[in-house]
Amino acid sequence: MKILFVGDVYGRTGRQMIQDYLPKLKSKFNPTATIVNAENAAHGKGLTKKIYRQLLEVGADMLTMGNHTWDNREIFEFIDDAKQLVRPANFPAGTPGTGLRFLTLPHNIQVAVINIQGRVFLPPLDDPFSTVKQLVDEARKKTPIIFIDVHAETTSEKLALGWYLDGTVSAVVGTHTHVQTADERIFPQGTAYLTDVGMTGPYNGIIGVQRASVTKRFLTSMPVRFESEEGPGQLSAVLIHVNDKTGKASKIERILINDDHLFFD
Amino acid sequence: MKILFVGDVYGRTGRQMIQDYLPKLKSKFNPTATIVNAENAAHGKGLTKKIYRQLLEVGADMLTMGNHTWDNREIFEFIDDAKQLVRPANFPAGTPGTGLRFLTLPHNIQVAVINIQGRVFLPPLDDPFSTVKQLVDEARKKTPIIFIDVHAETTSEKLALGWYLDGTVSAVVGTHTHVQTADERIFPQGTAYLTDVGMTGPYNGIIGVQRASVTKRFLTSMPVRFESEEGPGQLSAVLIHVNDKTGKASKIERILINDDHLFFD
Amino acid sequence: MKILFVGDVYGRTGRQMIQDYLPKLKSKFNPTATIVNAENAAHGKGLTKKIYRQLLEVGADMLTMGNHTWDNREIFEFIDDAKQLVRPANFPAGTPGTGLRFLTLPHNIQVAVINIQGRVFLPPLDDPFSTVKQLVDEARKKTPIIFIDVHAETTSEKLALGWYLDGTVSAVVGTHTHVQTADERIFPQGTAYLTDVGMTGPYNGIIGVQRASVTKRFLTSMPVRFESEEGPGQLSAVLIHVNDKTGKASKIERILINDDHLFFD
Amino acid sequence: MKILFVGDVYGRTGRQMIQDYLPKLKSKFNPTATIVNAENAAHGKGLTKKIYRQLLEVGADMLTMGNHTWDNREIFEFIDDAKQLVRPANFPAGTPGTGLRFLTLPHNIQVAVINIQGRVFLPPLDDPFSTVKQLVDEARKKTPIIFIDVHAETTSEKLALGWYLDGTVSAVVGTHTHVQTADERIFPQGTAYLTDVGMTGPYNGIIGVQRASVTKRFLTSMPVRFESEEGPGQLSAVLIHVNDKTGKASKIERILINDDHLFFD
Ligand SMILES: [Fe+2]
Ligand SMILES: [Fe+2]
Ligand SMILES: [Fe+2]
Ligand SMILES: [Fe+2]
Ligand SMILES: [Fe+2]
Ligand SMILES: [Fe+2]
Ligand SMILES: [Fe+2]
Ligand SMILES: [Fe+2]
Repeated sequence: MKILFVGDVYGRTGRQMIQDYLPKLKSKFNPTATIVNAENAAHGKGLTKKIYRQLLEVGADMLTMGNHTWDNREIFEFIDDAKQLVRPANFPAGTPGTGLRFLTLPHNIQVAVINIQGRVFLPPLDDPFSTVKQLVDEARKKTPIIFIDVHAETTSEKLALGWYLDGTVSAVVGTHTHVQTADERIFPQGTAYLTDVGMTGPYNGIIGVQRASVTKRFLTSMPVRFESEEGPGQLSAVLIHVNDKTGKASKIERILINDDHLFFD
Repeated sequence: MKILFVGDVYGRTGRQMIQDYLPKLKSKFNPTATIVNAENAAHGKGLTKKIYRQLLEVGADMLTMGNHTWDNREIFEFIDDAKQLVRPANFPAGTPGTGLRFLTLPHNIQVAVINIQGRVFLPPLDDPFSTVKQLVDEARKKTPIIFIDVHAETTSEKLALGWYLDGTVSAVVGTHTHVQTADERIFPQGTAYLTDVGMTGPYNGIIGVQRASVTKRFLTSMPVRFESEEGPGQLSAVLIHVNDKTGKASKIERILINDDHLFFD
Repeated sequence: MKILFVGDVYGRTGRQMIQDYLPKLKSKFNPTATIVNAENAAHGKGLTKKIYRQLLEVGADMLTMGNHTWDNREIFEFIDDAKQLVRPANFPAGTPGTGLRFLTLPHNIQVAVINIQGRVFLPPLDDPFSTVKQLVDEARKKTPIIFIDVHAETTSEKLALGWYLDGTVSAVVGTHTHVQTADERIFPQGTAYLTDVGMTGPYNGIIGVQRASVTKRFLTSMPVRFESEEGPGQLSAVLIHVNDKTGKASKIERILINDDHLFFD
Repeated sequence: MKILFVGDVYGRTGRQMIQDYLPKLKSKFNPTATIVNAENAAHGKGLTKKIYRQLLEVGADMLTMGNHTWDNREIFEFIDDAKQLVRPANFPAGTPGTGLRFLTLPHNIQVAVINIQGRVFLPPLDDPFSTVKQLVDEARKKTPIIFIDVHAETTSEKLALGWYLDGTVSAVVGTHTHVQTADERIFPQGTAYLTDVGMTGPYNGIIGVQRASVTKRFLTSMPVRFESEEGPGQLSAVLIHVNDKTGKASKIERILINDDHLFFD
């Protein structure tokens, strides 16, 4: 089976890229499951119910989130009913939503999807290592096919989690930095790994945000209102080939669509 | 002309990769100037005089540094005489060494090399934006060919610096995260950009460090002694094609050599 | 001469405490100059023109600011005309406002007031040490009586600045943590020092903010809207005795007014 | 009953202050239990077995620690046998040592001592709020007299923990910043609170460290070796009066001994 994972959808431009290219990617690669990180889908800040539905309609089977999960307060109204959404699992007990959900696919294939957040240079949360281990143990009772979106800032925390989970999950793919890394590989015990899948949104912004305002912030150290950048878009994704029976990954391919990397059917 | 830039050389494994592959890369790509980030060359922590010389002998024309510049105290003995070394320019006035040096190449081509360090999630330094702008102005009096190693943690600070300098320098390439990014591009005004070139060192470590000790640190939150990982190596680099007259970049190619990406002549 | 300095005035409760007690403090202690930190005066976030005027009317001679200087965008309309206001001096060149102003008092006494911001656990700014040294050199051409509000998070950065300036200024007093410290002293060369003067605002909040919302933030790691706490107030201040001729401090006294420390005329 | 708590003992100077003044403090105040924070007792970095014993011999009944717990590796040899030592309770499960211990005093009075560490601007640990709540619940089964050393950087996290625990413990006293705060109070439900008790060590250092090296670090942004400052010492402590039956605090008094605050019997 194949898992297609699309990185942080950012605002209107990101949603447009999904609408334009997700169908094409699906017909080209024929993924068994499609997962999309949606933490920035609503104007860069969180997710609304409308956009949640829209992303599912256009082809996502499951959405993952990150540190921006709660930015749009609408999330509190629908997260507990959102069966196709995971938020970082290591928020404290009692937090709305959940960090592990299962997708049931044709031929009775089940995919566990886990979202976990790093703690280095990010707000304090429960330990991602012990939390993810517990969830992986739980998921493995049902299925060997486990996909993990590690939402974290530093390469070291993501690599450490990847190596830590090697052999127990199908894939560990990072999000949050909004820049795709080139280090995709299959770890020795069969876990596919990529430090960051990158962002799906404005190609000429600074991690999605308007260039002028970010630059102003750096130059002046003053508070600046961040809007999305205008102009052409980018889609960042990754395709992982997984053995249905063992859950081991056999191949991981990066996907990048933008003005410098045109899409070919 | 072509600039070859090799990312953070890490310890013995990194130096071995340089020794094994730099000559091959040079005969394959025939770069006009070869620049190497050496902040982790001595056991992951700084640089010694012996290794400084060794890296030059094996083919580097200029070394750049980063937040680990001062880790090995030998640096204070030779940095002021090291004509082929730049350290981050935005250390305060009076700091040994310099952040801008010129390489004089055959056909009287001059390349300015600047090293600058980010401030987000890194120790306080002078403003990298105003510092680099001043150095670029100074360098442009001598040559339009300017290469900048931006040593920084976050994608936003690196992207902001890249866009900020677009059209005034030949290339802005990031270092420090030790993971190569896949976002190489030529910005609209002719500056080549890559968020991070990646590390040259142990392929199976965590950003070069022994996996077991990094994992222990994350699992226990206790102090752990960091040693280099053993085993196979990796080399991360980038090749930039620059117009001799205008200093504009026309092409940027990533290079990755490891067990998953074999080198072909 | 005597300098009275009141710490971070926080919202309506803080302004009420100023109104109620500043006249009483002035008649009790008869300060020659009264300085007030106003970075939180408008609902905890910055300063409006109306509140700027109100604080001067009720007895302040000069206001200092901090990391919240720009929170209320009204500041941009009046800061350049606000002759009785200093903001942290180490914002980059070109920033509106200034970090050094002089107060001219009866008997031709001049007091230089400098505001400087730390960089540890706060956003990047220019180096506070070299910036403050330059301003002190400038101020000393006019007067030996120099008061410095060091707006910083850590005790180490504040203590380091205090010792660094010992003998060249009359007083180094910290702000920002909103809790008064008990380490007032005269350093060997005659500079009065206090790590933090503390906050003037709600006595039963958490550094001014509503207890319930701060606790919720810590317990849930979710974004929470911060309002001021209700209920009784507190005023935090310090009185420094300075020799008119030499600028040396001879005495430093902490002042704390709240339900546990009643004010006596 | 009365609890005497002495703040972060720092190096040789701190130990000398304890030796000189702890007996005097005990005969003056006659505390029922004496607790000492020892995270910096061995050259500023952790604790040795010899110093552990020495502090007990000179009058401590229980030692608390902090982020420097593991700095001296000798701790691993004796922490599990050290019945009079607590380390921050929110290190992950499996960490040597414990965060809650009971002191049994004459007249069968029991005191629970808990050590907890903050997460803001400190390395990631388990949630201090939920961890401490669980330990307090456990302790209250045995005794209503509960003393908590909150080792944390920011005033907001300490105040939030203090208010959060109000009415369930006898005292919440902060350590770590090495500067005594002046905000001692009894919260409405009977918990004594002080944001930071301050350090016991060199009076003329920067939080204990040699002034010259700290200043050099701030001025140059280079790595500097930190040694203890020489010269006169300081002792920082707090005395809390607690009702034996209810565990409620009735009084909290700060104690400061240094060249500016001489000790009187
Ligand atoms: Fe994102
Ligand atoms: Fe994120
Ligand atoms: Fe590096
Ligand atoms: Fe680095
Ligand atoms: Fe404030
Ligand atoms: Fe502040
Ligand atoms: Fe300490
Ligand atoms: Fe500490």
